[in-house]
Amino acid sequence: ARTGLPEAVLCSAKSPAQITEILAAAQARGARLLLTRLEPAGFAALDEGARAGLDYDPLARTAVLGGKLALADTPVAVVAAGTSDLPVAREAVQTLAFNGEGALLVADVGVAGLWRLMERIEEIRACRVVIAVAGMEGALFSVLGGLVSAPVIAVPTSVGYGVAEGGKAALTSALASCAPGVVTVNIDNGFGAACAALKMLGAAVPANQER
Amino acid sequence: ARTGLPEAVLCSAKSPAQITEILAAAQARGARLLLTRLEPAGFAALDEGARAGLDYDPLARTAVLGGKLALADTPVAVVAAGTSDLPVAREAVQTLAFNGEGALLVADVGVAGLWRLMERIEEIRACRVVIAVAGMEGALFSVLGGLVSAPVIAVPTSVGYGVAEGGKAALTSALASCAPGVVTVNIDNGFGAACAALKMLGAAVPANQER
Amino acid sequence: ARTGLPEAVLCSAKSPAQITEILAAAQARGARLLLTRLEPAGFAALDEGARAGLDYDPLARTAVLGGKLALADTPVAVVAAGTSDLPVAREAVQTLAFNGEGALLVADVGVAGLWRLMERIEEIRACRVVIAVAGMEGALFSVLGGLVSAPVIAVPTSVGYGVAEGGKAALTSALASCAPGVVTVNIDNGFGAACAALKMLGAAVPANQER
Amino acid sequence: ARTGLPEAVLCSAKSPAQITEILAAAQARGARLLLTRLEPAGFAALDEGARAGLDYDPLARTAVLGGKLALADTPVAVVAAGTSDLPVAREAVQTLAFNGEGALLVADVGVAGLWRLMERIEEIRACRVVIAVAGMEGALFSVLGGLVSAPVIAVPTSVGYGVAEGGKAALTSALASCAPGVVTVNIDNGFGAACAALKMLGAAVPANQER
Amino acid sequence: ARTGLPEAVLCSAKSPAQITEILAAAQARGARLLLTRLEPAGFAALDEGARAGLDYDPLARTAVLGGKLALADTPVAVVAAGTSDLPVAREAVQTLAFNGEGALLVADVGVAGLWRLMERIEEIRACRVVIAVAGMEGALFSVLGGLVSAPVIAVPTSVGYGVAEGGKAALTSALASCAPGVVTVNIDNGFGAACAALKMLGAAVPANQER
Amino acid sequence: ARTGLPEAVLCSAKSPAQITEILAAAQARGARLLLTRLEPAGFAALDEGARAGLDYDPLARTAVLGGKLALADTPVAVVAAGTSDLPVAREAVQTLAFNGEGALLVADVGVAGLWRLMERIEEIRACRVVIAVAGMEGALFSVLGGLVSAPVIAVPTSVGYGVAEGGKAALTSALASCAPGVVTVNIDNGFGAACAALKMLGAAVPANQER
Amino acid sequence: ARTGLPEAVLCSAKSPAQITEILAAAQARGARLLLTRLEPAGFAALDEGARAGLDYDPLARTAVLGGKLALADTPVAVVAAGTSDLPVAREAVQTLAFNGEGALLVADVGVAGLWRLMERIEEIRACRVVIAVAGMEGALFSVLGGLVSAPVIAVPTSVGYGVAEGGKAALTSALASCAPGVVTVNIDNGFGAACAALKMLGAAVPANQER
Amino acid sequence: ARTGLPEAVLCSAKSPAQITEILAAAQARGARLLLTRLEPAGFAALDEGARAGLDYDPLARTAVLGGKLALADTPVAVVAAGTSDLPVAREAVQTLAFNGEGALLVADVGVAGLWRLMERIEEIRACRVVIAVAGMEGALFSVLGGLVSAPVIAVPTSVGYGVAEGGKAALTSALASCAPGVVTVNIDNGFGAACAALKMLGAAVPANQER
Ligand SMILES: Nc1ncnc2c1ncn2[C@@H]1O[C@H](COP(=O)(O)O)[C@@H](O)[C@H]1O
Ligand SMILES: Nc1ncnc2c1ncn2[C@@H]1O[C@H](COP(=O)(O)O)[C@@H](O)[C@H]1O
Ligand SMILES: Nc1ncnc2c1ncn2[C@@H]1O[C@H](COP(=O)(O)O)[C@@H](O)[C@H]1O
Ligand SMILES: Nc1ncnc2c1ncn2[C@@H]1O[C@H](COP(=O)(O)O)[C@@H](O)[C@H]1O
Ligand SMILES: [Mg+2]
Ligand SMILES: [Mg+2]
Ligand SMILES: [Mg+2]
Ligand SMILES: [Mg+2]
Ligand SMILES: [Mg+2]
Ligand SMILES: [Mg+2]
Ligand SMILES: [Mg+2]
Ligand SMILES: [Mg+2]
Repeated sequence: ARTGLPEAVLCSAKSPAQITEILAAAQARGARLLLTRLEPAGFAALDEGARAGLDYDPLARTAVLGGKLALADTPVAVVAAGTSDLPVAREAVQTLAFNGEGALLVADVGVAGLWRLMERIEEIRACRVVIAVAGMEGALFSVLGGLVSAPVIAVPTSVGYGVAEGGKAALTSALASCAPGVVTVNIDNGFGAACAALKMLGAAVPANQER
Repeated sequence: ARTGLPEAVLCSAKSPAQITEILAAAQARGARLLLTRLEPAGFAALDEGARAGLDYDPLARTAVLGGKLALADTPVAVVAAGTSDLPVAREAVQTLAFNGEGALLVADVGVAGLWRLMERIEEIRACRVVIAVAGMEGALFSVLGGLVSAPVIAVPTSVGYGVAEGGKAALTSALASCAPGVVTVNIDNGFGAACAALKMLGAAVPANQER
Repeated sequence: ARTGLPEAVLCSAKSPAQITEILAAAQARGARLLLTRLEPAGFAALDEGARAGLDYDPLARTAVLGGKLALADTPVAVVAAGTSDLPVAREAVQTLAFNGEGALLVADVGVAGLWRLMERIEEIRACRVVIAVAGMEGALFSVLGGLVSAPVIAVPTSVGYGVAEGGKAALTSALASCAPGVVTVNIDNGFGAACAALKMLGAAVPANQER
Repeated sequence: ARTGLPEAVLCSAKSPAQITEILAAAQARGARLLLTRLEPAGFAALDEGARAGLDYDPLARTAVLGGKLALADTPVAVVAAGTSDLPVAREAVQTLAFNGEGALLVADVGVAGLWRLMERIEEIRACRVVIAVAGMEGALFSVLGGLVSAPVIAVPTSVGYGVAEGGKAALTSALASCAPGVVTVNIDNGFGAACAALKMLGAAVPANQER
Repeated sequence: ARTGLPEAVLCSAKSPAQITEILAAAQARGARLLLTRLEPAGFAALDEGARAGLDYDPLARTAVLGGKLALADTPVAVVAAGTSDLPVAREAVQTLAFNGEGALLVADVGVAGLWRLMERIEEIRACRVVIAVAGMEGALFSVLGGLVSAPVIAVPTSVGYGVAEGGKAALTSALASCAPGVVTVNIDNGFGAACAALKMLGAAVPANQER
Repeated sequence: ARTGLPEAVLCSAKSPAQITEILAAAQARGARLLLTRLEPAGFAALDEGARAGLDYDPLARTAVLGGKLALADTPVAVVAAGTSDLPVAREAVQTLAFNGEGALLVADVGVAGLWRLMERIEEIRACRVVIAVAGMEGALFSVLGGLVSAPVIAVPTSVGYGVAEGGKAALTSALASCAPGVVTVNIDNGFGAACAALKMLGAAVPANQER
Repeated sequence: ARTGLPEAVLCSAKSPAQITEILAAAQARGARLLLTRLEPAGFAALDEGARAGLDYDPLARTAVLGGKLALADTPVAVVAAGTSDLPVAREAVQTLAFNGEGALLVADVGVAGLWRLMERIEEIRACRVVIAVAGMEGALFSVLGGLVSAPVIAVPTSVGYGVAEGGKAALTSALASCAPGVVTVNIDNGFGAACAALKMLGAAVPANQER
Repeated sequence: ARTGLPEAVLCSAKSPAQITEILAAAQARGARLLLTRLEPAGFAALDEGARAGLDYDPLARTAVLGGKLALADTPVAVVAAGTSDLPVAREAVQTLAFNGEGALLVADVGVAGLWRLMERIEEIRACRVVIAVAGMEGALFSVLGGLVSAPVIAVPTSVGYGVAEGGKAALTSALASCAPGVVTVNIDNGFGAACAALKMLGAAVPANQER
């Protein structure tokens, strides 16, 4: 797109035929492509030729056409509260990798066990952007927002039941966070968080324009 | 009431005349009485005689008829995230005091400044019941719930704007808390939290029935 | 956990492989373990070895690794309004049992048939903590809250249709209860209610610190 | 109206001039008229002539033009949970009176003090229709619905705060009631409940058409 | 029950074994029984003996144990807006029949085709109670409420999509109806509407107590 | 604007100074201007010079700068359910008049008194576009939509209490209407409905392009 | 119907038997018929004879009985934001075609790629009515509304996840649009939008009544 | 705070006495301070001494203690849709200025007049971070997100009525935006957006660590 972001295809509402066609067109023009929300069943439904050209990650539900890039050294931190939040966290990691950015994935650090987060906090502080992924009550967003000086992008997940079902509880926690500077994307939108992180890395002062 | 809880009068929807009548009746039968949600304007509207017999706290918006009790030594912790949460926290403190229970009030320890909470955490851990009062995103509930072994009663407050307006964001955080054993009362219900704490203190194994 | 509560595993979003791994790790370190939200199909999907070591309750959807404890004499009351509320009530009972606390399960006492509740009320009054489980309009919470002096923990259930679908109607009844001292946990959260009950039992005045 | 119900004027959104005009027109054609939602300030704003012809009840916020009817002997029960519910209950009472039906007003019988309701239950059972008025969690509706064989019309009130603010909690309790045969009207709609009661009284089998 | 209403069993959350047991118990004590929300698959899952004793209506999803009663001559009107509302309307009809009350079922009279309703209005006006069943925007409730003098019980249905999905749009139409005297039950609650109608028929002035 | 619609100024969030400035600028460039949501107090706060140039309608809360146009013969029907809906209906009428279109205002024809609507229906049928204005349950939209062949633009109003408060009940009725071809604008948006009507009148086949 | 709109059958809640019966009746009286929401599985379930007489479009989920009409020259624009919005857009196109109106279908012009919309804008401006179909945040409605002078009918779609799930986000965008004159129908209601467009085309000044 | 963000005081729920005390303490320790949500009436209520030391902006409702900083050359773009959005936009501008960052304020560029935005787009594209402020339907967020490569921080405002009242419509538009990389803060939170922008500027690759 004209915004410098990677070309991505949201597969959730597309048929195997439509996806195959998109892949063929990309290959024809020599373009790299990121597929998201491609469930294992959807991947299996593609014909063998299409599957062969793809690097598929069933946990992230992503597939990459056109090979990997070398990753930059300074990683983006992707911090996940629980194991159920991992698919969304991995979607973010794969979107970053597709664009050549490395990720430090820190998992299972929900705030009910605060000491686990504190054991990893210095590693996280060393990153230039932090993506925080959490469902349930999303308390992780505020705790992280108060501990790091990098921008914190909250990704509420739909993990949870009762009042947390669907992710609204975590979303309102992110939006109402008392830690200034926390920003939010839609529920489960690991892809969007990674796109925002990419834009933020690009917001750096260019070398020739130092302040 | 038959549940052993204090007799309390919710004044928000009562006229000065109605309140005066209730006070007179209580005095006639020699009963102590706790008035809640009595705003300064409402207190001022009572006639001088009625006011004279009351111990009024404008921040808590409570008034006590019939004098103070000596307070028990082991306090209940009342932990408030921000200064705007103080009226609700004080309503809890006054309800406890009306029943002879002391309170340790710990204020201004919202999780965006986690170190402030950590400086007070041992004092809180020494209490047998913890009442946590917070608005906005209510992250305090989960953080406290993961740090203390006493029961934690969350009181979400209506402090906040946007998605936090009215207290629903803090309420869903309390209910969806990933810290097991956190329980919740209605938004702004400091009185109810104190009543629950009183019931919990009473749930102790009686001396003659040790386990 | 550091709060003295039992180690429990929420199985709803975990694969059989993940659960097997967790069980093996617990066995390796000689730990007892409580599994919750393990549906019959999920239990059946575990390999035979894993299943053999577990004490499974299909109604409660819980499984225990590491054997039963003897139960304390003074039970916690678990009061369920209807038969559809039994799975949630049993989750609470099993969580208590895992920690050595007995439960008095009183079922089918919804308030539309008030006399059925009144026939059992003295038994309930003899308990130190009451867990009330109800869906639909959750009127049971207020009725119980007005009849017993022990703490009442409301567990709204997702049982119901129309405006009661998903449990919000029962939840707001619990939160808005006119019976002071009723506290609430998330919809269907029998495990959380039992954890809170365990914390409340522990809030008892220790023998050497009587008041 | 063509349905046999009384002519009523909802004054909340009408100016003094509009109300005066309506009164004059009714007087001109010799009609009796019931005014509802006429707050004291609105009544005071009418000119003296208009006020003189009206029988005003400031608690119910109703006014009657054209004099009282003698009341029927078998009353409709109007049962109110708390004192804050009285204005709505009185609106129902006045609407019934305007049509010649008597009311048995039973107040302050919220279910947190169940024994107070039980002391009055036989009087209530003697009535042919029951109007139940309650705010907060509205548990009264189900308890009454399970105790009487007459139709129970629930009127949820906007009394309450937090999740009960505005009356939605009481409304969902009425709709989700596990007591079959409870019906509901809009929040605070004492007038509508009385109209429904009038229709129900009229649904009686006429003497010459016994079954 | 003590309210004079029929004994009914809500089957939606019950297993075939549980239902069989309930049927056996009823048969043992010679009781008639109404089963509701028994989907065809659930009926088929009962063993042949149990099925043989039941009078099953797959559209209404009801089954009757113990034979039919003769029906009263003056029917209750059950008016349905569209064909999709018929299952709910039939649940009401069967509940009435179980209690010996006849029903006049008027279908396909949604207000977008007002003339169809007008062709049937005199028949409806001859009934002592009217049950109106409608989904989508539920305009039928107000139109009927303004045309008949009998009590109108609105049953909003979950028929609809977009903002009407789940029945909330029809429910708010019923509650906010500008036709005074319309009362409402929960979404899809044809059984409850019929119970209310039965109570209303009973609210008739007994012959020996004429007014 | 480039869409051919009139220039209008929404005054609700503007200061008298800002409005005065906008009026001066319009006068300077000789433009006609429509002011909406200008409450009487806001109009009074303008200085005398500004007021003198305006044609103010306090019921509609509109003001016109630059004089009236002659009105077209074929009017747009503006149909209002109740007297409380008149301000919104008049806002539509004034917006049409500002653009030279006449309006047939039909008031007090809510569906609870269907015969009043039927008395006026032929006049309404003679119009090329119908704007329907209703609050409460908004049943008027479906009834009208089924009776006229012209496009019906529903304007839900915020008139109502309980579930109808704020206009959501009427809005969902408009959107879920079972009468095909009803379209909707935002709550209280009489101006928007008139703009849509103007666009619809312009959608007519031009004389030189007949079909 | 009496409003001049086509006879259409909403198949989503009808059985194959019911649909077959409706088709036979229409054929018997020589009527043309439009079936909507007939999913491929539902079409396949019809018997061969019924299927033979139908012109079925699986993407639009529509079927036409009775043959096509020649299409008018001046088309209605149907503008869809994304490929997932195509089923709803096609439902509108087929409804127009059933009535002899042509459509200009412009797809894949979501506002995140504004230049794609701008490339097609002159074609759209040449149409007399515009139907805009979009899910997610529905920004397309306001952008189009500000660019064309024809009436714009917004059709929000249920395409989206998180806060956009079910279509409410797109719906509120349509209703709150800052572009005056945008009107809305229910979520996914392509049929209703086309009906409204048909009514608008008919709102044209008849040749013999020019203004 | 430990995150490098400016010290700010939210004044909305603080008394003049509390604010005065905070100001005195800051002055005593020589700290600069940003006050937000200080309405003109609140500012006027401070004593003259306190007011004298403050640089107050009544539109932004901010006050600065301790003098201005020189502003950096590369500004942050703050883009506001309408004049009613200006207070929130100015709060962002003042927060940036307090930290030495300049702002390019672009106002009145709502998407209903797309050409106005296009006239300013190159200036906006030259900025390293873009803050977009919009109420109503918030279509501006997606349009901007698709046009610039810098990070776009959406600030939904509470400006609007009907479905847009309170800002939820604009908020869901921001979250559901089809333009990848748009991030959101709470409704009306201009301060939080500026804090996030400050963090993003700091996320730039440090000169000694170029990639
Ligand atoms: N997982 C995802 N979540 C949100 N947006 C996505 C995702 N994957 C792709 N997108 C965006 O959604 C759009 C995909 O549109 P399309 O594939 O054309 O339907 C593109 O603008 C993508 O950048
Ligand atoms: N601040 C409060 N919040 C919630 N409930 C209260 C409060 N104060 C009193 N109550 C309870 O509300 C009821 C007050 O009822 P009344 O004063 O009779 O209207 C009693 O049951 C009190 O225990
Ligand atoms: N308190 C009330 N609540 C609900 N409806 C009422 C009330 N009072 C009068 N009404 C009805 O509201 C309508 C009053 O309309 P109007 O006075 O013409 O605005 C009539 O149909 C009355 O029967
Ligand atoms: N279709 C129905 N809708 C609503 N309530 C029902 C229905 N059928 C039975 N009931 C009521 O639900 C309760 C059934 O409880 P049980 O069968 O004991 O779970 C009884 O009080 C019945 O009167
Ligand atoms: Mg979490
Ligand atoms: Mg807080
Ligand atoms: Mg229940
Ligand atoms: Mg009550
Ligand atoms: Mg209908
Ligand atoms: Mg109306
Ligand atoms: Mg879109
Ligand atoms: Mg805007």
